Amino acid sequence: MDLTTHRIFMAELARASGELIRPYFRDPSLVVETKGDATPVTAADRGAEELLRRLINAKFPTHGIIGEELGNERPDAEFVWVLDPIDGTKSFIAGVPLWGTLIALLHQGQPVLGCIHQPVLGQLMIGDGEQTTLNGRPVRTRRTTRIEDATFLTSDPFNFRQRMGPGTDALLARAKLVRTWGDCYGYLLVAAGLADVMIDPIMNPWDIAALVPVVRGAGGVITDWQGGAPYPADSTVAAATPELHAAVLAGLKT
Amino acid sequence: MDLTTHRIFMAELARASGELIRPYFRDPSLVVETKGDATPVTAADRGAEELLRRLINAKFPTHGIIGEELGNERPDAEFVWVLDPIDGTKSFIAGVPLWGTLIALLHQGQPVLGCIHQPVLGQLMIGDGEQTTLNGRPVRTRRTTRIEDATFLTSDPFNFRQRMGPGTDALLARAKLVRTWGDCYGYLLVAAGLADVMIDPIMNPWDIAALVPVVRGAGGVITDWQGGAPYPADSTVAAATPELHAAVLAGLKT
Repeated sequence: MDLTTHRIFMAELARASGELIRPYFRDPSLVVETKGDATPVTAADRGAEELLRRLINAKFPTHGIIGEELGNERPDAEFVWVLDPIDGTKSFIAGVPLWGTLIALLHQGQPVLGCIHQPVLGQLMIGDGEQTTLNGRPVRTRRTTRIEDATFLTSDPFNFRQRMGPGTDALLARAKLVRTWGDCYGYLLVAAGLADVMIDPIMNPWDIAALVPVVRGAGGVITDWQGGAPYPADSTVAAATPELHAAVLAGLKT
Repeated sequence: MDLTTHRIFMAELARASGELIRPYFRDPSLVVETKGDATPVTAADRGAEELLRRLINAKFPTHGIIGEELGNERPDAEFVWVLDPIDGTKSFIAGVPLWGTLIALLHQGQPVLGCIHQPVLGQLMIGDGEQTTLNGRPVRTRRTTRIEDATFLTSDPFNFRQRMGPGTDALLARAKLVRTWGDCYGYLLVAAGLADVMIDPIMNPWDIAALVPVVRGAGGVITDWQGGAPYPADSTVAAATPELHAAVLAGLKT
């Protein structure tokens, strides 16, 4: 399946949404609303998703769309775009650039192309499961195999413990470095070979879809926290190598 | 005491060191060494500190210098510059822009002027204890008074617990949001009104000196973790308001 056209279009989507979002970042007049699930949302999230939907509908009118903010259109189509305009809204609101725009393309329900875009830092990572590039240059995960040598990332230090069982504290204590450089930016760091493990205990389809081809294309392993298929799932464990991934799952089950 | 000249010179120092450091950030060929205290160091740290010393010695030959990487010169002078070329080297190495250059000016042993500079994000915060500016515009801390409403930051989730007593877990669990957006960038966020508490259990003079006039100039409170003078000290608690600061100290002592 030749996805060249889709890949070029994905980069165009990232560029366009990034231009829309950037002026809202660190804008003191930005209004933050709280959604029904207690998570925050802003005009930047909604505006970017509206723009992405408009561009996709113009280019591929038969494709479906699933988005965090504005629901589903034709979700059973052969090709479906999955959108999270700002993954990491809490960072976005705090003026911390550890957030990104996630765009994925599903084919027959499975992600075949994904991107993580950080428009303030100018980083566009695109993966297809075979290869992942950062601003056009191929990236690879590190060769780390032991927890003790790993930079271990998660979005939030608490929901991690609450949802993933009693082994989490001991697992974190073994890691070389633990940081909440979280949300999609953590996966970008793992895929770029700058960190080794990224783990999230609460995920939605629009959070995960783009990560799967990105992490796999860089040579990493991604599943849910019990080793099951990563998409769709409600949690994510990504690691630089199969050995490290197995060690993380074993630690979580302890 | 008129510090206008010193303030202008401090901004020049920040600009010059930022230009030197920036090309090293995310350079895959960067060599990371480990110092005697097990912390990392790179050519960017050393090169920036050498440059800052050269500029200070040329402009103020009677002033002293204390620096993280290259030791002390005339540390008992009336005016002493305190330098940490890259505060947050672990973030720097991981390609995460939550690090900065710290420059402080001591007068008779106490910090009277300080800056936090993030050259990748283009953020220069300067404070004199009365006023703090970010890229020339005055900033103020938020008015948060309760832990339950606070965005609570620390550099590392583990040394925090180990060094600050048994109350830390319960304290963190009460906060609205906990993140390791750490090192000097956490203090910048508190001073800019984007977070509420930043806490560090292990500090050196070059880590702290610049933070004191920055946090106070923005309306915040900064002490060591037992409420003592912030400089020199071996730990730091900074908070947006006196009420919040008192609540954090009380929580740490529990």
